[in-house]
Amino acid sequence: MSEVLGEVSIGKREVYSGRVVHLDVHEVRLPNGQVTKRELVTHPGAVAIVPIDMDGNVLMVRQFRFAAGRHLLEIPAGTLEKGEDPDVCAVRELREETGMRPDKIEKIGGLFVAPGYTTEYIHLYYATELSDDPLPQDDDEAISVQRISLAEALRLIETGEITDGKSITGLLRVARRLGV
Amino acid sequence: MSEVLGEVSIGKREVYSGRVVHLDVHEVRLPNGQVTKRELVTHPGAVAIVPIDMDGNVLMVRQFRFAAGRHLLEIPAGTLEKGEDPDVCAVRELREETGMRPDKIEKIGGLFVAPGYTTEYIHLYYATELSDDPLPQDDDEAISVQRISLAEALRLIETGEITDGKSITGLLRVARRLGV
Repeated sequence: MSEVLGEVSIGKREVYSGRVVHLDVHEVRLPNGQVTKRELVTHPGAVAIVPIDMDGNVLMVRQFRFAAGRHLLEIPAGTLEKGEDPDVCAVRELREETGMRPDKIEKIGGLFVAPGYTTEYIHLYYATELSDDPLPQDDDEAISVQRISLAEALRLIETGEITDGKSITGLLRVARRLGV
Repeated sequence: MSEVLGEVSIGKREVYSGRVVHLDVHEVRLPNGQVTKRELVTHPGAVAIVPIDMDGNVLMVRQFRFAAGRHLLEIPAGTLEKGEDPDVCAVRELREETGMRPDKIEKIGGLFVAPGYTTEYIHLYYATELSDDPLPQDDDEAISVQRISLAEALRLIETGEITDGKSITGLLRVARRLGV
C-alpha cells in the first residue's frame, strides 16, 4: 500500500541557480498527510566511464577536488550538457579527460549519488578498444591520467586510497563482470 | 609537482543554510593562477551499513526518495548528528531503520558521494550478529525493511533495480569480502 504512495511537492522556493547545481526548498506532503520541507539540489546528471586498455589497465584521472579538500583518483566522468545524450557525453568526456576514444562502449546501469538531497544520476559505462583521439580539456580542470591494473585499483579501494563513490561502483561492477 | 597544489578559496558567499545541506559559492584560485567559482554543498557526513543476518540475508530499506522521484531500495543509512561519532551513528541508524542492534560492526572505509560539489563523505560499515533492539524512526521517514539474500541483492544491482550509489558500493564491497 505505502509502495505506491510518494511525497508530493505542494510548494517550492528557488534558492539558487548556478553553473552546476540549483537549489530549491520544497514543501512536500508525506504519505501520512504530514507536511515537511525537502532541500533539493537539482543537477543535470552525469556520466562515468571505466576504460580498460589492451593490457587490462584501467585509465584513471587524478585531480584536486575542492569539496574533498584533496586530490582524488577517479574514473573519467563529467556532467551532461543541456540536451546531451549520455552515450555521446561518455565518449566526449573520455576523449577530453584521457585523450582516448573507445571503439567499444557499453552502458552498465547507473547510480543516484545522494538521493537524500540531489537529483544527480550518473550513467555508468564500460569502455574498451581505446585509441588516441583527444579533445581539449575543460579550462578549469587540471587532470593527470594514471594507468593502473584493475587488480591494483581494487587494492586501492580496500586501502581507502580510492574513495570516490562512482569510481568504486564502476570498478567493482567491471571487476565482477571480468571475474577479477 | 602538481600533486601538492590544490585550489585555494579566496572568498565565499553564503547562499543557504538549511536542515541537511548548506550552500556556499567560493571564489577559488586554481594551481595555474586562474580564478574560478566553485559551488559547494557542505554536508555533515553520514553513515551507511551493510547488515547481514544469520541466514546470509542483507537487511535493506525501501523508502520514497523525493530527489529520485520514486521508491529506492537502499542499505540502512543516516546523517551524522552534530559532533556524533560515526561508529555510534551507525548503530543508532541501524536500530532506528531496521530495529536491529549489531553485536559485531566493522568499518570498511567510505566514499565521497559527489566530490564535484558536495563535502558529503559516507562512512561504510559491515554489521553482523544482529538482535532485536529497536529505536523509534525519524518522524518524516516512512521506511519498510526487506530481507533479501546477498546474491539477490547483487542481481538487483545488475538489473538496475538497486541504483543508490552507497548501497551498490557497500553491497559489492561486502560481496568481495565474503567471496559471494
